[in-house]
Amino acid sequence: MSPRVTPLGLVRIVGTGLIGASVGMALRAAGIQVALEDASPTAAALACDLGAGHTQVRALELDPDIVVVAVPPDVAARVVAAELQRWPGAVVTDVASVKGRILDQVRDVLTNDPVGVGHLARYVGSHPMAGRERSGAVAAQPDLFEGRPWVVTPHESSSPWAVAAVAALAAHVGAAVVRMTAEEHDAAVAAVSHAPQVAASLVAARLRDLPTLAVGLSGQGLRDVTRIAESDPALWTQILAGNAPAVADVLRALRNDLDDVIAALADLSADPEVAPGARAVLARAVAEGQIGRARIPGKHGMTLASYGVVTVVVPDTPGQVGRLLTEVGDLGVNLEDLHFEHAVGRPIGSVELMVVPAAVEPLRVALADLGWTVHA
Amino acid sequence: MSPRVTPLGLVRIVGTGLIGASVGMALRAAGIQVALEDASPTAAALACDLGAGHTQVRALELDPDIVVVAVPPDVAARVVAAELQRWPGAVVTDVASVKGRILDQVRDVLTNDPVGVGHLARYVGSHPMAGRERSGAVAAQPDLFEGRPWVVTPHESSSPWAVAAVAALAAHVGAAVVRMTAEEHDAAVAAVSHAPQVAASLVAARLRDLPTLAVGLSGQGLRDVTRIAESDPALWTQILAGNAPAVADVLRALRNDLDDVIAALADLSADPEVAPGARAVLARAVAEGQIGRARIPGKHGMTLASYGVVTVVVPDTPGQVGRLLTEVGDLGVNLEDLHFEHAVGRPIGSVELMVVPAAVEPLRVALADLGWTVHA
Repeated sequence: MSPRVTPLGLVRIVGTGLIGASVGMALRAAGIQVALEDASPTAAALACDLGAGHTQVRALELDPDIVVVAVPPDVAARVVAAELQRWPGAVVTDVASVKGRILDQVRDVLTNDPVGVGHLARYVGSHPMAGRERSGAVAAQPDLFEGRPWVVTPHESSSPWAVAAVAALAAHVGAAVVRMTAEEHDAAVAAVSHAPQVAASLVAARLRDLPTLAVGLSGQGLRDVTRIAESDPALWTQILAGNAPAVADVLRALRNDLDDVIAALADLSADPEVAPGARAVLARAVAEGQIGRARIPGKHGMTLASYGVVTVVVPDTPGQVGRLLTEVGDLGVNLEDLHFEHAVGRPIGSVELMVVPAAVEPLRVALADLGWTVHA
Repeated sequence: MSPRVTPLGLVRIVGTGLIGASVGMALRAAGIQVALEDASPTAAALACDLGAGHTQVRALELDPDIVVVAVPPDVAARVVAAELQRWPGAVVTDVASVKGRILDQVRDVLTNDPVGVGHLARYVGSHPMAGRERSGAVAAQPDLFEGRPWVVTPHESSSPWAVAAVAALAAHVGAAVVRMTAEEHDAAVAAVSHAPQVAASLVAARLRDLPTLAVGLSGQGLRDVTRIAESDPALWTQILAGNAPAVADVLRALRNDLDDVIAALADLSADPEVAPGARAVLARAVAEGQIGRARIPGKHGMTLASYGVVTVVVPDTPGQVGRLLTEVGDLGVNLEDLHFEHAVGRPIGSVELMVVPAAVEPLRVALADLGWTVHA
């Protein structure tokens, strides 16, 4: 009996938190049937109320074509294995932010199952690169995956039709499918997500015992560096533990660079006038950061370095930013990014408008003509 | 002969880069006479053209009441000493982002001067906590200091009237005066600015050799953490070198925390199922980051944690964000902060509106009534 290849007849979602409920909402919006299950019946019922799918016994007893396991990472493998065993015709994916370890765990569980190898062909891990600071179905959005990468990780035992089914699921919710091995995925997210999370948390932790007057000197730079330090410790403990080897690799490399910087600063502390080579170490650290930063893609796949910036001073009264952006829109200019700058305790602020380079000068001139205070 | 205490008759600015030119513009806007000098006559003439002050010989030969030294940090002390010697009636301040080392250097230079001690009474270091990614007079803004802290650092030899003069200067350009010792200042900026800069640069540097597909998984979190990694290596080498002991202290503490995290990850790599205590180390690192992050003040002095957020989905066509913010303004709601979220390669995006907590629910309901897709 060959499993069905049409992936989107009935989709079963196990785990109705932010990601599971958002997948359900997006699929429902595309007219696809969705069955919802959660260890907490209340959570499942809430997701159902929010339009993420059905929770009736009848829906839950139908054979699904594809199962999306959207439970916390530390129980994902166990649930994946159970779903593979329960639905012998279904493709099963999980959406955890770590892939290698979950594949290992699924393989371990299925090895104790006489038909384990056959089951493994129907499992393909995946990872939608989307999230929010808030969690739970109440924070779910049907457009959460719109335009975001959704990594699909085939393995040596996965069937091509199972990989295609998971890719089709991702495409249906508006995501851009990216294929990688589990190992490539884990190394990538260690560098672009997990290690930066640790760095942000450690920088923020240094503020804990600082005098209040000192914390008061914080600017937008510190606010940006530490924004993700607001994330949930319980979830991040699971993520970091689940990707421990890859995260440790990135952090060890980072510590080596940090040791070089500390040694250079120690030389400069001992003899500020001389310290041969110390300044080159500091300059190189900042310069290599510039190079790495320039590689990060922005909106529309452009790298950040390719934007131009127009800064406009706005009185900090209701509606001023709106009036500005309405006029930018009327000029036919599309914003690539926008940055809101404060003036602490003062009724004035400024907005940085990021646009394609060719639009900088015309926008600057046009806004100045309209009476705005503009900086190039 | 007692030096004049009225600080704002004629202000002399030496160094017409971003900070010097912005101070000049702000003082001119307040009707105060400003004389400009720069090692580069072209730079001084440009700042003059931009409205930052005068460069005529006549203006430069008048006795100033206060001298603002706004040159790169590695030459600040030498220029401060020269200005103290040249204008025996003037108060002299500098605006470098490091204070202890410059005070030491000024003291060293003046020790070789027979009337050195008297000169030192008229020097009071200061540091406006304002800046931009771009440099030079072309990036200058008269409102650069509006509502930002301006640290004034009295020392054991400074005269009270000199301290008052520098504080008056800061107040005239719209800044909020904060008094600290040079040592307190240097420890504070090491924690809230210099160490975060190093962390952002080192995290960004890890992206340099990453496969393109891996960099493509970057999200807003990484963009925020690494934004300041775009900063100028030459300037930051001077800043870090100038504050080497204090920055090294913060980075050593950060490295100790990092070592704990790496050790925990190594334990988890060796034995993912057991590793006693390792998860507690990871959870504590993230939790302490949350505590530190919550101390950072936002706009109007509120801490960031005290904002509420309303997320609105907007079609990514010109004018939509403007229409939204105009309607927010029409509702009489003042934005505390604003965050623009992209959907890579897709014509949709979302805007996070940060408002006082009491405004969240009314704003959510009102915008939904107006037809916007709103998430709480």
